[in-house]
Amino acid sequence: MATLKDVAREVGLSVGTVSRVLNNRGYISAETRANVRAAMQKLDYQPNEVARSLSRQRTSTIGLIMPSIEHPYFARLISCLERSAYERAYKILLFCAYGIPDQEKKFVEACRSNRVAGLIICSDSVRTETFSNLGFPLISYERYLDSSDACVLCDNEEGGGLAAKELIERGCRRPAYLCGRSRVGMPADMRKDGFLNVCRQYGISPETYLFEADRMLDVQYCPEIISFLKEHPCTDGLFCGSDVIAAEAIQAASVLGIDVPGRLKIVGFDDVLPAVLTSPKITTIRQPVKEMAKACIELIDKKNSGESVPSRSVFHVSLVRRGTT
Amino acid sequence: MATLKDVAREVGLSVGTVSRVLNNRGYISAETRANVRAAMQKLDYQPNEVARSLSRQRTSTIGLIMPSIEHPYFARLISCLERSAYERAYKILLFCAYGIPDQEKKFVEACRSNRVAGLIICSDSVRTETFSNLGFPLISYERYLDSSDACVLCDNEEGGGLAAKELIERGCRRPAYLCGRSRVGMPADMRKDGFLNVCRQYGISPETYLFEADRMLDVQYCPEIISFLKEHPCTDGLFCGSDVIAAEAIQAASVLGIDVPGRLKIVGFDDVLPAVLTSPKITTIRQPVKEMAKACIELIDKKNSGESVPSRSVFHVSLVRRGTT
Repeated sequence: MATLKDVAREVGLSVGTVSRVLNNRGYISAETRANVRAAMQKLDYQPNEVARSLSRQRTSTIGLIMPSIEHPYFARLISCLERSAYERAYKILLFCAYGIPDQEKKFVEACRSNRVAGLIICSDSVRTETFSNLGFPLISYERYLDSSDACVLCDNEEGGGLAAKELIERGCRRPAYLCGRSRVGMPADMRKDGFLNVCRQYGISPETYLFEADRMLDVQYCPEIISFLKEHPCTDGLFCGSDVIAAEAIQAASVLGIDVPGRLKIVGFDDVLPAVLTSPKITTIRQPVKEMAKACIELIDKKNSGESVPSRSVFHVSLVRRGTT
Repeated sequence: MATLKDVAREVGLSVGTVSRVLNNRGYISAETRANVRAAMQKLDYQPNEVARSLSRQRTSTIGLIMPSIEHPYFARLISCLERSAYERAYKILLFCAYGIPDQEKKFVEACRSNRVAGLIICSDSVRTETFSNLGFPLISYERYLDSSDACVLCDNEEGGGLAAKELIERGCRRPAYLCGRSRVGMPADMRKDGFLNVCRQYGISPETYLFEADRMLDVQYCPEIISFLKEHPCTDGLFCGSDVIAAEAIQAASVLGIDVPGRLKIVGFDDVLPAVLTSPKITTIRQPVKEMAKACIELIDKKNSGESVPSRSVFHVSLVRRGTT
């Protein structure tokens, strides 16, 4: 590969001058600039980002450590993060830890070794001390971490309340809450609090059911939902912790011959692809994932510019009414 | 951050010795090794991957340029690529170009500047010349590229044939093929050839319909499927170019009051998440995405070791029978 030296030799200028053209620094005549660009093209010169990163002691790369890539919520989140990163000239280094603490730790170390400009982590398992003294901004997504520089999350309690209100106002008197199990206290657990609080205001005491499987890593909820509906045959409304669970609740109802939304109303959470691929489509609580992703990247930018940032950025959610209510 | 020099000073050894411990090179006594490791831990030393990459003139990073992250097929593909990369000590640099040629070109340049160890691209739009003289292996996924070092794809023709056989053997006499539109000739177009060939063997001439939207980037097929079914009311079987299209075909049938699989049988393609989230679940053609992803990473490894590799690696597909046939 051609180096900066080769380009300088080609145009008969110093490496310093060529470097100034490359970095748009200092005064360079239009003619010189054109000559240098032509030589770069002729020699197929590629700036060496690795060398630039070494001299700056920082790359323009942001690390992502996610519990899943394939789950529709994370597929959407990663998609939005990649786009926001691109708009601010960052690249994405992607790691999937499957919620395994040792892997998360290893990937945090990999981010340090690779001198990332920042790290966005979505973890429900890693201990906080893993994240101290990283040397770059750490953004925690949908989890409070004492050691993170900032946490980005949606208003899960508000979402739970909106779901309760929708089910009750559409006529449900025996609603239930179905959710994956988290290993530690998570902001998402506040969906339940919000749901129960609003139900209480209406004088209703809902059932709650936690799946055996881990949140977000398993998607085989249908058999457990069938069992739940058999054990609680009066259930007339389900608030599901994700759209994936809601899609499987529709399947469970179909197996049992229960009409949705006639006899059973369903509200999901997230508003991601499965919500619009089922029949009927799923009424759900929309997380503003695009805006939340943008906030993560902006927070890294601000921290790296020495600005102080809010420790928590909480985003409103909203109800999207479709065919299941 | 602590440097290798700081560690050497701490243990009273040369930088060369400390470096040999770090890289497991040459003879080092167990005691020295333990002392160096202890000093590294005490000083919280992190090896600088950026500096190592610069001296090797190559990173341990593989670039991915994808047309979508959120589409369930690509979410699965990226997930499998990340896992296979991790197993071979590579990291993933993720770019989403949304099928826009200029962005793809820009990301190819970014991969060159960042000295990736290899590039995996899934593109239906970029011109071949963009990819010449990259200086690292280029793997083309589901597309033939003259300039790529290797192409990985599934046997699309076999898949089309399996779909035709399933529909016809289950009693369909008026099947149709529904697919997204590609801008250039793609291996995926051979699904249609395989489908039509097998139909012909049974003396059946199916309708084919191409959606207005681009393949893989849009997921609003339902209205067009409704129109198609109204115009072709005798249709008794649909072979859909993806599971997402198949899910929307179920929605279209539901809107029109057509029973699936009673009056209309449906076969999808891919075998990704939506196929198991609908009611009924979707009979589909399974692509071995995990094995195909593994092959991509292995091909990069082999090319970088100077081994010669097959220019095309074609993987068998299989029928997964579920509730829509």
